[in-house]
Amino acid sequence: MPIPINTGDTAWLMIASSLVLLMIPALGMFEAGLLRQKNAVSVFMQIFFGLALLSVMWFTVGFSLTFGPDTGEGLTGNTDWRFLHGVSQKEGLHYAPTVPGVSFAMFQMMFAVITPLILTGAVAERMRFSAYVLFIVAWSALIYYPLVHWIWGDGWLHKLGVVDFAGGMIIHTTTGVGGIAAALVLGRRLGFGPGIMVPHNIPLAVLGSSLLWLGWFGFNAGSAYSAGSLSGITIVNTQMASAVSCLIWVVIFWIRTRKSSIIAAINGAVAGLAGITPASGYVGVEFAVVIGIIVGFASSLMVPVFKERLKIDDALDIGAVHGVSGIIGSLLVGVFANSAVNHLGINGWLYGNPGQLGAQALGVGIAVLMGFGGTWLILKILKALIPIRVSSSVEEAGLDIEEHAERAYSDEEEYGKL
Amino acid sequence: MPIPINTGDTAWLMIASSLVLLMIPALGMFEAGLLRQKNAVSVFMQIFFGLALLSVMWFTVGFSLTFGPDTGEGLTGNTDWRFLHGVSQKEGLHYAPTVPGVSFAMFQMMFAVITPLILTGAVAERMRFSAYVLFIVAWSALIYYPLVHWIWGDGWLHKLGVVDFAGGMIIHTTTGVGGIAAALVLGRRLGFGPGIMVPHNIPLAVLGSSLLWLGWFGFNAGSAYSAGSLSGITIVNTQMASAVSCLIWVVIFWIRTRKSSIIAAINGAVAGLAGITPASGYVGVEFAVVIGIIVGFASSLMVPVFKERLKIDDALDIGAVHGVSGIIGSLLVGVFANSAVNHLGINGWLYGNPGQLGAQALGVGIAVLMGFGGTWLILKILKALIPIRVSSSVEEAGLDIEEHAERAYSDEEEYGKL
Amino acid sequence: MPIPINTGDTAWLMIASSLVLLMIPALGMFEAGLLRQKNAVSVFMQIFFGLALLSVMWFTVGFSLTFGPDTGEGLTGNTDWRFLHGVSQKEGLHYAPTVPGVSFAMFQMMFAVITPLILTGAVAERMRFSAYVLFIVAWSALIYYPLVHWIWGDGWLHKLGVVDFAGGMIIHTTTGVGGIAAALVLGRRLGFGPGIMVPHNIPLAVLGSSLLWLGWFGFNAGSAYSAGSLSGITIVNTQMASAVSCLIWVVIFWIRTRKSSIIAAINGAVAGLAGITPASGYVGVEFAVVIGIIVGFASSLMVPVFKERLKIDDALDIGAVHGVSGIIGSLLVGVFANSAVNHLGINGWLYGNPGQLGAQALGVGIAVLMGFGGTWLILKILKALIPIRVSSSVEEAGLDIEEHAERAYSDEEEYGKL
Repeated sequence: MPIPINTGDTAWLMIASSLVLLMIPALGMFEAGLLRQKNAVSVFMQIFFGLALLSVMWFTVGFSLTFGPDTGEGLTGNTDWRFLHGVSQKEGLHYAPTVPGVSFAMFQMMFAVITPLILTGAVAERMRFSAYVLFIVAWSALIYYPLVHWIWGDGWLHKLGVVDFAGGMIIHTTTGVGGIAAALVLGRRLGFGPGIMVPHNIPLAVLGSSLLWLGWFGFNAGSAYSAGSLSGITIVNTQMASAVSCLIWVVIFWIRTRKSSIIAAINGAVAGLAGITPASGYVGVEFAVVIGIIVGFASSLMVPVFKERLKIDDALDIGAVHGVSGIIGSLLVGVFANSAVNHLGINGWLYGNPGQLGAQALGVGIAVLMGFGGTWLILKILKALIPIRVSSSVEEAGLDIEEHAERAYSDEEEYGKL
Repeated sequence: MPIPINTGDTAWLMIASSLVLLMIPALGMFEAGLLRQKNAVSVFMQIFFGLALLSVMWFTVGFSLTFGPDTGEGLTGNTDWRFLHGVSQKEGLHYAPTVPGVSFAMFQMMFAVITPLILTGAVAERMRFSAYVLFIVAWSALIYYPLVHWIWGDGWLHKLGVVDFAGGMIIHTTTGVGGIAAALVLGRRLGFGPGIMVPHNIPLAVLGSSLLWLGWFGFNAGSAYSAGSLSGITIVNTQMASAVSCLIWVVIFWIRTRKSSIIAAINGAVAGLAGITPASGYVGVEFAVVIGIIVGFASSLMVPVFKERLKIDDALDIGAVHGVSGIIGSLLVGVFANSAVNHLGINGWLYGNPGQLGAQALGVGIAVLMGFGGTWLILKILKALIPIRVSSSVEEAGLDIEEHAERAYSDEEEYGKL
Repeated sequence: MPIPINTGDTAWLMIASSLVLLMIPALGMFEAGLLRQKNAVSVFMQIFFGLALLSVMWFTVGFSLTFGPDTGEGLTGNTDWRFLHGVSQKEGLHYAPTVPGVSFAMFQMMFAVITPLILTGAVAERMRFSAYVLFIVAWSALIYYPLVHWIWGDGWLHKLGVVDFAGGMIIHTTTGVGGIAAALVLGRRLGFGPGIMVPHNIPLAVLGSSLLWLGWFGFNAGSAYSAGSLSGITIVNTQMASAVSCLIWVVIFWIRTRKSSIIAAINGAVAGLAGITPASGYVGVEFAVVIGIIVGFASSLMVPVFKERLKIDDALDIGAVHGVSGIIGSLLVGVFANSAVNHLGINGWLYGNPGQLGAQALGVGIAVLMGFGGTWLILKILKALIPIRVSSSVEEAGLDIEEHAERAYSDEEEYGKL
């Protein structure tokens, strides 16, 4: 007898999907606000077009390749569920038995859309739009879909006990290290240095980061696939990790510069959110705070390492904010996880299961390998086939006017003079 | 024995109402961002004041005239439910038996508010605010309220089998063709041509369109009045139609100009959303994609017909984006509807019920007649009584400073110089 | 036997918490948009940093001191629930029996965060950031936490029958009168007068106010702790009070200036929302409209009294918009409350219980005393210890560049010239 659909769980998953959808333009605002005015349209186009394209790709084959029936070796789902064929409207899948199968597919669609878009923060202000489109398609198919199947589907890492509540490995580790790889292949922006890193619109960036924080409630607590004790604690964990990481970033930045920086505050919040993601539904709130503290320190201290010491032009610090945070959070699941918090979850080292840390380390290793190596390879191959970077004159003039023939802000009089 | 209120269904309908509320400022941002800076305040004032005014009007008589007990001829509801008298807080109405009557009235209030506000996109940058206020009051009372009663209430079109899941006829067809009529009566803006069509703030427009996309989940799936299989498939349909229409607009625009345009992307998404609205809870996802494709092509190809060939100054292309899309989607319900998707729904031609297409054609015909003819008449009568358009000098200076004594953006220094 | 967790109620409380979270950046946008460009970052930093800091403070001791077990005299909760120890993930507290205890703590965290942040509207454009941080910490501990315990916890005012549905006394009265006190202690801004009160970004302010309106659905109807008849009527009441107050402000402003002002519209909406807050779950919709009318007139007429007659530089009119509205709404609960609307609620004078008005008057009196007196004292003591106001030259140059070394808007070329 099938488990009946629960209206409260379904209501929550639908709103969680909506909240993750909101994160997509929020990402665009966060990034565009922190970048230069002349490239603001290009960021929004990457994000918005990506939303449409990756949705269609997920509908066509993505959901089937990830969550569809395994082909037998634990490496990929088959194509039985292409075009959502056979995904039930009226019953739940085993991943989320009390919500309609199509609602599970929808929630996961939002994840499949936003993940590759995080990379826009690394490649910003210099990548050709056409190359970008090919890049995210390849990245989805070759990195994201396999990893999702391996960990969240019925794949081999899942069978080895690797867990990732809402995407610390699958989403933040892969895009974080992938961002570093992409920045290395693309090369630094012209005039790389503090002079080009002046946010053009801080209110836009603050709005974006605030909506990311909000959306993360859906992102993490939606991954409970139910409305009750598990989603409840997940939201609290999310809030606390974000808050403490935010405070730490502000303090560390203040020690360095004697100024209280809103840019530090919003980046710190996002780092805390990325760090708690893999653990948010497995740990008690006291450990969510501990994770927020560790992630806050580690990610803020790694920003100058990547940018100033190694001179990697990961434009918006994806490597530190998402990568470092995602790796730490994913490993700490192996330490702090407590099955009293999540009765379907696991225990970590502190709760008598030291082996979980090994499983988590394996998962992180695979995610780093796929994320860094995969991104590097995809971009190297693309670069051999087509130009992936705009010309210096286009970069100088800004991508908006050259690639999109649109400018973020105009007024009639000014336009008349062009 | 009354059907008990379901907490999950109620939670979903309340959040769906919230999401539609969010579409109201989103519409303002979308429009203001695409228009000139000197008229941005006027758009926001039209939208925000409209929200307040139309809410009060709905509370006073609107809900009763639409969903209240029919007077007998199927033409209008009576006034028994004025001021929401007798609308139960504790039991459901027959329209939505598992949610409180007042929550149904609230959700429908949001629809009654946003519908006339869509017309601001056609009359932008030249209509007097006082005339605008009278216009939306008359439009609500004479066009929207009757049509709602006829199709969603217990009116004559409902009895003839016409269906409209979330407002393809009632909302998008009427406002789309009404926008064309309004543009014809008002006349073209001074300097009509590409020079005055430069968006003043693209991030604002992208944010607005993104929030429209998000809000549409509540708009369409809220119309299921429950959280379960029907709302689940409705959201998926909404997402897919929007995504494919967005892609088509971008490609068509790219073929014309060799540029990938964010303006095309966001308009394409909105067109897809408008197109799927009447069908979103009646068709399977494969047909949602088909509708998105047809709507994407048709609406994008009609923009230059209205604007360049016919020289109609429907400022933000309401006619193509809402009208063409709403008409097509409403007709295609008659072809693709499948009662396996919605057990309270109907079958279309493909599922053995060719007569449904006739019913839908009748509904569309009435909506076009009411929307175009009604709007034309209202504005012609208004124009005979009061000036409906600002003077040339006000239009030149911008409505913001002349009608509202406010400017969208200021800074102290600049202000000191005025 | 414990009451089982209800999935619909929990889904609604989680989304209500999310909606209140959204009000926090919304407040920043509303305020920053209405202030001068040179202080926009400072507002966002106050808001965003406050979100992080007050969340941690709530988690550490705040929840326990407010909702924790009473120490016996009705004056404060004890510290048993520090760090959310013992707050159940799996069962409800007696405050909200059908939702997880941690979800109740989370919802209340959002209230504890946003309340002190309302004061930023009064102290804007001149307070030192470090002093601000100490101020909100002290304000939370000495004013907010006690009042919450007294009225919403098991404290003495609760036992005397004082009720406050979603914070008319606890939130809006205290911050409203506290804003006046803060403005008096801090003193007027340099150049106080119309010349410095030009909103720098109206679209930002409109977006902020719209999101406040939206978030208030969660704020008020979340306070029902359930998804059903009570939350349903609460949203309708919220909508109607906001709408009528908005219309009244616009009309009154129009009578004065012959211009229809968007600033009046958005302030009027917020005043209506603040006014209905204490009553939203206790009164029928007809009385929500009455409250909206009274609040709309009173708050709009008090703005020039405070600002022009008394020359108090409460920068964004917190005293009128929140204080006057909160006081009126809290008193009117004692007149209009109807236990047929809320079976756990009370009756007011109109429904045979004149004593309730006395209870409400007592609650308002205490809230005014704590809010005005407490704020005055805290700031006077702070001022004796450290400078609480920036220097004239910093104020002239703007807080953004001097206190935060960041500017709201920049572009590369401009930056190159600095």
